[in-house]
Amino acid sequence: MSQSSPREQMILAAMSLFQREGYTAASWRRLVQESGAPWGSAYHYFPDGKEQLGIAAVEASAKIFAGLTARCFPQGGRAADGIEKLFAGSAAQLAKSGYTAGCPICTVALETAPQSRAMAEACKKAFDLWQRTLAEGLVRCGIAAEKAGALASTVLAAFEGALIQARLARSKEPLSVCASQMAYLCER
Amino acid sequence: MSQSSPREQMILAAMSLFQREGYTAASWRRLVQESGAPWGSAYHYFPDGKEQLGIAAVEASAKIFAGLTARCFPQGGRAADGIEKLFAGSAAQLAKSGYTAGCPICTVALETAPQSRAMAEACKKAFDLWQRTLAEGLVRCGIAAEKAGALASTVLAAFEGALIQARLARSKEPLSVCASQMAYLCER
Repeated sequence: MSQSSPREQMILAAMSLFQREGYTAASWRRLVQESGAPWGSAYHYFPDGKEQLGIAAVEASAKIFAGLTARCFPQGGRAADGIEKLFAGSAAQLAKSGYTAGCPICTVALETAPQSRAMAEACKKAFDLWQRTLAEGLVRCGIAAEKAGALASTVLAAFEGALIQARLARSKEPLSVCASQMAYLCER
Repeated sequence: MSQSSPREQMILAAMSLFQREGYTAASWRRLVQESGAPWGSAYHYFPDGKEQLGIAAVEASAKIFAGLTARCFPQGGRAADGIEKLFAGSAAQLAKSGYTAGCPICTVALETAPQSRAMAEACKKAFDLWQRTLAEGLVRCGIAAEKAGALASTVLAAFEGALIQARLARSKEPLSVCASQMAYLCER
Protein backbone atom coordinates (compact mmCIF):
# COMPACT_ATOMS: atom_id res chain seq x y z
CA MET A 1 0.00 0.00 0.00
CA SER A 2 1.32 3.41 -0.87
CA GLN A 3 1.79 5.78 2.03
CA SER A 4 -0.20 8.97 1.47
CA SER A 5 0.74 12.32 2.97
CA PRO A 6 -1.48 13.97 5.60
CA ARG A 7 -2.56 16.41 2.89
CA GLU A 8 -3.63 13.57 0.60
CA GLN A 9 -5.30 11.74 3.48
CA MET A 10 -7.41 14.82 4.17
CA ILE A 11 -8.39 15.26 0.54
CA LEU A 12 -9.38 11.60 0.28
CA ALA A 13 -11.46 11.81 3.46
CA ALA A 14 -13.19 14.94 2.17
CA MET A 15 -13.91 13.36 -1.24
CA SER A 16 -15.47 10.35 0.44
CA LEU A 17 -17.54 12.30 2.96
CA PHE A 18 -18.78 14.79 0.34
CA GLN A 19 -19.75 11.92 -1.94
CA ARG A 20 -21.74 10.15 0.77
CA GLU A 21 -23.23 13.01 2.81
CA GLY A 22 -22.44 16.29 1.14
CA TYR A 23 -20.60 19.42 2.21
CA THR A 24 -22.75 20.85 4.98
CA ALA A 25 -22.82 17.65 7.03
CA ALA A 26 -19.03 17.28 6.88
CA SER A 27 -17.73 19.44 9.74
CA TRP A 28 -14.05 20.41 9.84
CA ARG A 29 -13.67 18.32 13.00
CA ARG A 30 -15.13 15.23 11.29
CA LEU A 31 -13.05 15.78 8.16
CA VAL A 32 -9.86 15.89 10.21
CA GLN A 33 -10.88 12.90 12.35
CA GLU A 34 -11.90 10.69 9.41
CA SER A 35 -8.69 11.51 7.55
CA GLY A 36 -6.56 10.32 10.47
CA ALA A 37 -4.28 13.31 9.87
CA PRO A 38 -2.84 15.03 12.95
CA TRP A 39 -4.62 18.29 13.86
CA GLY A 40 -1.39 20.22 13.37
CA SER A 41 -1.10 19.05 9.74
CA ALA A 42 -4.73 19.86 9.05
CA TYR A 43 -4.16 23.52 9.82
CA HIS A 44 -0.74 23.47 8.22
CA TYR A 45 -2.00 22.26 4.84
CA PHE A 46 -5.38 24.00 4.92
CA PRO A 47 -4.93 27.19 6.98
CA ASP A 48 -8.24 28.53 5.68
CA GLY A 49 -10.09 25.43 6.88
CA LYS A 50 -13.00 23.59 5.36
CA GLU A 51 -13.59 25.67 2.22
CA GLN A 52 -9.94 25.39 1.19
CA LEU A 53 -9.99 21.62 1.73
CA GLY A 54 -13.35 21.47 -0.07
CA ILE A 55 -11.95 23.12 -3.18
CA ALA A 56 -8.94 20.76 -3.18
CA ALA A 57 -11.26 17.76 -2.86
CA VAL A 58 -13.52 18.96 -5.68
CA GLU A 59 -10.46 19.51 -7.91
CA ALA A 60 -9.09 16.04 -7.10
CA SER A 61 -12.46 14.36 -7.78
CA ALA A 62 -12.78 16.26 -11.04
CA LYS A 63 -9.40 15.01 -12.28
CA ILE A 64 -10.06 11.40 -11.28
CA PHE A 65 -13.45 11.27 -13.01
CA ALA A 66 -12.09 13.04 -16.10
CA GLY A 67 -9.35 10.40 -16.33
CA LEU A 68 -11.87 7.56 -16.04
CA THR A 69 -14.08 9.20 -18.67
CA ALA A 70 -11.26 9.72 -21.15
CA ARG A 71 -10.28 6.03 -20.93
CA CYS A 72 -13.83 4.98 -21.92
CA PHE A 73 -13.44 6.65 -25.33
CA PRO A 74 -10.23 5.43 -27.02
CA GLN A 75 -9.22 6.66 -30.47
CA GLY A 76 -11.25 4.83 -33.10
CA GLY A 77 -13.63 3.26 -30.57
CA ARG A 78 -17.43 3.39 -30.80
CA ALA A 79 -19.11 6.26 -28.96
CA ALA A 80 -21.97 3.96 -27.91
CA ASP A 81 -19.48 1.54 -26.32
CA GLY A 82 -17.84 4.39 -24.45
CA ILE A 83 -21.20 5.53 -23.07
CA GLU A 84 -22.11 2.01 -21.95
CA LYS A 85 -18.71 1.61 -20.28
CA LEU A 86 -18.94 4.96 -18.47
CA PHE A 87 -22.46 4.39 -17.15
CA ALA A 88 -21.91 0.71 -16.28
CA GLY A 89 -18.65 1.49 -14.49
CA SER A 90 -20.30 4.09 -12.28
CA ALA A 91 -23.31 1.84 -11.70
CA ALA A 92 -21.01 -0.95 -10.51
CA GLN A 93 -19.14 1.40 -8.16
CA LEU A 94 -22.40 2.80 -6.79
CA ALA A 95 -23.81 -0.68 -6.16
CA LYS A 96 -20.55 -1.80 -4.53
CA SER A 97 -20.76 1.11 -2.07
CA GLY A 98 -24.29 0.08 -1.03
CA TYR A 99 -25.66 2.99 -3.08
CA THR A 100 -23.89 5.63 -1.00
CA ALA A 101 -21.08 6.71 -3.35
CA GLY A 102 -22.78 8.92 -5.90
CA CYS A 103 -21.25 11.85 -7.75
CA PRO A 104 -18.51 13.45 -5.61
CA ILE A 105 -19.40 16.94 -6.86
CA CYS A 106 -23.19 17.09 -7.30
CA THR A 107 -24.27 17.30 -3.67
CA VAL A 108 -21.53 19.80 -2.87
CA ALA A 109 -22.43 21.89 -5.92
CA LEU A 110 -26.10 22.09 -4.99
CA GLU A 111 -25.44 22.88 -1.34
CA THR A 112 -22.77 25.51 -1.85
CA ALA A 113 -23.95 27.21 -5.06
CA PRO A 114 -25.74 30.02 -3.25
CA GLN A 115 -23.36 30.38 -0.28
CA SER A 116 -19.77 30.05 -1.42
CA ARG A 117 -18.64 31.62 -4.67
CA ALA A 118 -15.28 29.83 -4.42
CA MET A 119 -16.85 26.38 -3.98
CA ALA A 120 -19.41 27.01 -6.72
CA GLU A 121 -16.61 28.07 -9.05
CA ALA A 122 -14.61 24.91 -8.28
CA CYS A 123 -17.70 22.78 -8.97
CA LYS A 124 -18.40 24.61 -12.21
CA LYS A 125 -14.80 24.02 -13.33
CA ALA A 126 -15.24 20.31 -12.55
CA PHE A 127 -18.37 20.09 -14.73
CA ASP A 128 -16.65 22.07 -17.50
CA LEU A 129 -13.67 19.69 -17.40
CA TRP A 130 -15.97 16.65 -17.60
CA GLN A 131 -17.97 18.13 -20.46
CA ARG A 132 -14.79 18.93 -22.40
CA THR A 133 -13.31 15.49 -21.69
CA LEU A 134 -16.49 13.79 -22.87
CA ALA A 135 -16.68 15.96 -26.01
CA GLU A 136 -13.04 15.13 -26.86
CA GLY A 137 -13.77 11.44 -26.28
CA LEU A 138 -16.78 11.55 -28.59
CA VAL A 139 -14.67 13.20 -31.28
CA ARG A 140 -12.03 10.46 -30.90
CA CYS A 141 -14.86 8.00 -31.57
CA GLY A 142 -15.83 9.69 -34.81
CA ILE A 143 -18.56 12.12 -33.69
CA ALA A 144 -18.44 15.37 -35.66
CA ALA A 145 -16.84 18.16 -33.63
CA GLU A 146 -19.82 20.50 -34.17
CA LYS A 147 -22.17 17.95 -32.59
CA ALA A 148 -19.87 16.75 -29.80
CA GLY A 149 -20.30 19.73 -27.45
CA ALA A 150 -24.09 19.54 -27.17
CA LEU A 151 -23.99 15.75 -26.99
CA ALA A 152 -21.39 15.81 -24.22
CA SER A 153 -23.45 18.31 -22.19
CA THR A 154 -26.52 16.13 -22.58
CA VAL A 155 -24.76 12.87 -21.74
CA LEU A 156 -23.23 14.48 -18.65
CA ALA A 157 -26.60 15.87 -17.54
CA ALA A 158 -28.34 12.52 -18.05
CA PHE A 159 -25.50 10.72 -16.26
CA GLU A 160 -25.77 13.01 -13.22
CA GLY A 161 -29.55 12.73 -13.11
CA ALA A 162 -29.49 8.95 -13.52
CA LEU A 163 -26.92 8.64 -10.71
CA ILE A 164 -29.35 10.43 -8.40
CA GLN A 165 -32.23 8.18 -9.49
CA ALA A 166 -30.07 5.06 -9.07
CA ARG A 167 -29.03 6.11 -5.60
CA LEU A 168 -32.61 6.70 -4.47
CA ALA A 169 -33.91 3.52 -6.12
CA ARG A 170 -30.88 1.55 -4.85
CA SER A 171 -30.72 0.03 -8.33
CA LYS A 172 -28.42 0.20 -11.35
CA GLU A 173 -31.41 0.29 -13.69
CA PRO A 174 -31.78 4.08 -14.12
CA LEU A 175 -28.15 4.22 -15.30
CA SER A 176 -28.57 1.37 -17.79
CA VAL A 177 -31.85 2.80 -19.16
CA CYS A 178 -30.21 6.18 -19.65
CA ALA A 179 -27.05 4.70 -21.19
CA SER A 180 -29.06 3.02 -23.97
CA GLN A 181 -30.84 6.25 -24.83
CA MET A 182 -27.58 8.22 -24.82
CA ALA A 183 -25.89 5.57 -26.97
CA TYR A 184 -28.72 5.99 -29.45
CA LEU A 185 -28.33 9.80 -29.44
CA CYS A 186 -24.61 9.45 -30.17
CA GLU A 187 -25.17 7.10 -33.08
CA ARG A 188 -27.85 8.98 -34.94
CA MET B 1 -53.60 37.42 -1.42
CA SER B 2 -54.81 34.18 0.02
CA GLN B 3 -54.21 33.61 3.71
CA SER B 4 -52.24 30.42 4.29
CA SER B 5 -52.39 28.39 7.50
CA PRO B 6 -49.33 28.11 9.77
CA ARG B 7 -48.93 24.53 8.53
CA GLU B 8 -48.88 25.72 4.89
CA GLN B 9 -46.55 28.59 5.76
CA MET B 10 -44.08 26.12 7.24
CA ILE B 11 -44.24 23.81 4.23
CA LEU B 12 -43.69 26.73 1.85
CA ALA B 13 -40.72 27.98 3.88
CA ALA B 14 -39.21 24.49 3.91
CA MET B 15 -39.72 24.06 0.14
CA SER B 16 -37.99 27.34 -0.52
CA LEU B 17 -35.06 26.78 1.87
CA PHE B 18 -34.49 23.20 0.64
CA GLN B 19 -34.53 24.40 -2.96
CA ARG B 20 -31.97 27.13 -2.29
CA GLU B 21 -29.66 25.60 0.33
CA GLY B 22 -30.64 21.99 0.92
CA TYR B 23 -31.80 20.04 3.95
CA THR B 24 -28.78 20.02 6.25
CA ALA B 25 -28.37 23.82 6.22
CA ALA B 26 -32.04 24.39 7.09
CA SER B 27 -32.20 24.11 10.87
CA TRP B 28 -35.56 23.66 12.57
CA ARG B 29 -35.12 27.10 14.17
CA ARG B 30 -34.53 28.73 10.78
CA LEU B 31 -37.42 26.84 9.19
CA VAL B 32 -39.81 28.09 11.88
CA GLN B 33 -38.43 31.63 11.76
CA GLU B 34 -38.56 31.96 7.95
CA SER B 35 -42.10 30.58 7.87
CA GLY B 36 -43.32 33.26 10.25
CA ALA B 37 -45.41 30.60 12.01
CA PRO B 38 -45.69 30.82 15.81
CA TRP B 39 -43.42 28.36 17.65
CA GLY B 40 -46.46 26.73 19.23
CA SER B 41 -47.98 25.92 15.82
CA ALA B 42 -44.68 24.55 14.55
CA TYR B 43 -44.66 21.86 17.22
CA HIS B 44 -48.41 21.37 16.96
CA TYR B 45 -48.36 20.59 13.24
CA PHE B 46 -44.99 18.85 13.16
CA PRO B 47 -44.51 17.20 16.56
CA ASP B 48 -41.64 15.10 15.19
CA GLY B 49 -39.80 18.20 14.00
CA LYS B 50 -37.66 18.75 10.94
CA GLU B 51 -37.89 15.33 9.30
CA GLN B 52 -41.68 15.35 9.44
CA LEU B 53 -41.80 18.84 7.94
CA GLY B 54 -39.18 17.74 5.40
CA ILE B 55 -41.34 14.88 4.17
CA ALA B 56 -44.39 17.15 3.90
CA ALA B 57 -42.34 19.69 1.90
CA VAL B 58 -40.97 17.02 -0.44
CA GLU B 59 -44.51 15.68 -1.03
CA ALA B 60 -45.85 19.18 -1.72
CA SER B 61 -43.01 19.98 -4.15
CA ALA B 62 -43.54 16.65 -5.90
CA LYS B 63 -47.24 17.39 -6.49
CA ILE B 64 -46.62 20.93 -7.75
CA PHE B 65 -43.94 19.87 -10.23
CA ALA B 66 -46.03 16.89 -11.39
CA GLY B 67 -48.93 19.26 -12.10
CA LEU B 68 -46.69 21.63 -14.09
CA THR B 69 -45.27 18.68 -16.03
CA ALA B 70 -48.66 17.21 -16.88
CA ARG B 71 -49.85 20.55 -18.30
CA CYS B 72 -46.88 20.64 -20.73
CA PHE B 73 -48.15 17.50 -22.48
CA PRO B 74 -51.81 17.96 -23.48
CA GLN B 75 -53.73 15.22 -25.32
CA GLY B 76 -52.77 15.26 -28.98
CA GLY B 77 -49.88 17.69 -28.48
CA ARG B 78 -46.35 17.13 -29.78
CA ALA B 79 -43.92 15.47 -27.34
CA ALA B 80 -41.09 17.73 -28.54
CA ASP B 81 -43.17 20.83 -27.76
CA GLY B 82 -43.90 19.48 -24.28
CA ILE B 83 -40.20 18.93 -23.63
CA GLU B 84 -39.31 22.44 -24.80
CA LYS B 85 -42.05 23.92 -22.62
CA LEU B 86 -40.98 21.97 -19.53
CA PHE B 87 -37.28 22.84 -19.84
CA ALA B 88 -37.85 26.46 -20.86
CA GLY B 89 -40.33 27.00 -18.03
CA SER B 90 -37.85 25.76 -15.43
CA ALA B 91 -35.02 27.72 -17.03
CA ALA B 92 -37.07 30.91 -16.80
CA GLN B 93 -37.93 30.25 -13.15
CA LEU B 94 -34.29 29.49 -12.32
CA ALA B 95 -33.08 32.67 -14.03
CA LYS B 96 -35.76 34.74 -12.29
CA SER B 97 -34.54 33.48 -8.90
CA GLY B 98 -30.98 34.60 -9.68
CA TYR B 99 -30.05 30.94 -10.24
CA THR B 100 -30.86 29.91 -6.69
CA ALA B 101 -34.15 28.03 -7.16
CA GLY B 102 -33.12 24.66 -8.60
CA CYS B 103 -34.90 21.36 -8.10
CA PRO B 104 -36.70 21.33 -4.74
CA ILE B 105 -35.93 17.62 -4.23
CA CYS B 106 -32.46 16.94 -5.66
CA THR B 107 -30.29 18.53 -2.98
CA VAL B 108 -32.44 17.04 -0.21
CA ALA B 109 -32.34 13.60 -1.87
CA LEU B 110 -28.56 13.58 -2.16
CA GLU B 111 -28.00 14.84 1.39
CA THR B 112 -30.46 12.57 3.14
CA ALA B 113 -30.17 9.36 1.08
CA PRO B 114 -27.65 7.73 3.42
CA GLN B 115 -28.97 9.15 6.72
CA SER B 116 -32.76 9.18 6.73
CA ARG B 117 -34.69 6.27 5.28
CA ALA B 118 -37.96 8.22 5.59
CA MET B 119 -36.64 11.26 3.69
CA ALA B 120 -35.00 9.09 1.03
CA GLU B 121 -38.28 7.23 0.57
CA ALA B 122 -40.22 10.51 0.18
CA CYS B 123 -37.68 11.71 -2.42
CA LYS B 124 -37.85 8.41 -4.30
CA LYS B 125 -41.66 8.67 -4.40
CA ALA B 126 -41.33 12.19 -5.80
CA PHE B 127 -39.05 11.01 -8.62
CA ASP B 128 -41.35 8.05 -9.31
CA LEU B 129 -44.36 10.40 -9.55
CA TRP B 130 -42.50 12.70 -11.96
CA GLN B 131 -41.35 9.79 -14.10
CA ARG B 132 -44.90 8.39 -14.27
CA THR B 133 -46.38 11.82 -14.99
CA LEU B 134 -43.88 12.39 -17.80
CA ALA B 135 -44.48 8.91 -19.27
CA GLU B 136 -48.26 9.51 -19.25
CA GLY B 137 -47.71 12.89 -20.91
CA LEU B 138 -45.56 11.35 -23.63
CA VAL B 139 -48.25 8.74 -24.29
CA ARG B 140 -50.88 11.52 -24.58
CA CYS B 141 -48.60 13.03 -27.24
CA GLY B 142 -48.54 9.85 -29.27
CA ILE B 143 -45.39 8.11 -27.96
CA ALA B 144 -45.84 4.30 -27.85
CA ALA B 145 -46.48 3.11 -24.29
CA GLU B 146 -43.63 0.57 -24.44
CA LYS B 147 -41.13 3.35 -25.21
CA ALA B 148 -42.56 6.01 -22.89
CA GLY B 149 -41.17 4.64 -19.60
CA ALA B 150 -37.50 4.60 -20.64
CA LEU B 151 -37.87 7.95 -22.41
CA ALA B 152 -39.48 9.53 -19.35
CA SER B 153 -36.68 8.26 -17.07
CA THR B 154 -34.08 9.67 -19.45
CA VAL B 155 -35.80 13.03 -19.91
CA LEU B 156 -36.13 13.37 -16.14
CA ALA B 157 -32.47 12.45 -15.58
CA ALA B 158 -31.28 14.90 -18.23
CA PHE B 159 -33.57 17.60 -16.83
CA GLU B 160 -32.18 17.17 -13.30
CA GLY B 161 -28.58 17.15 -14.53
CA ALA B 162 -29.10 20.17 -16.77
CA LEU B 163 -30.71 22.09 -13.89
CA ILE B 164 -27.53 21.53 -11.85
CA GLN B 165 -25.34 22.65 -14.77
CA ALA B 166 -27.53 25.70 -15.37
CA ARG B 167 -27.36 26.67 -11.72
CA LEU B 168 -23.56 26.45 -11.61
CA ALA B 169 -23.13 28.21 -14.95
CA ARG B 170 -25.77 30.82 -14.03
CA SER B 171 -27.14 30.34 -17.54
CA LYS B 172 -30.24 28.86 -19.17
CA GLU B 173 -28.11 27.31 -21.92
CA PRO B 174 -27.55 23.82 -20.44
CA LEU B 175 -31.33 23.43 -20.21
CA SER B 176 -31.96 24.54 -23.78
CA VAL B 177 -29.15 22.34 -25.16
CA CYS B 178 -30.57 19.34 -23.33
CA ALA B 179 -34.15 20.10 -24.35
CA SER B 180 -33.26 19.95 -28.06
CA GLN B 181 -31.55 16.58 -27.64
CA MET B 182 -34.46 15.20 -25.61
CA ALA B 183 -36.95 16.48 -28.18
CA TYR B 184 -35.00 14.62 -30.83
CA LEU B 185 -35.03 11.41 -28.74
CA CYS B 186 -38.81 11.65 -28.37
CA GLU B 187 -39.37 12.13 -32.08
CA ARG B 188 -37.22 9.34 -33.40
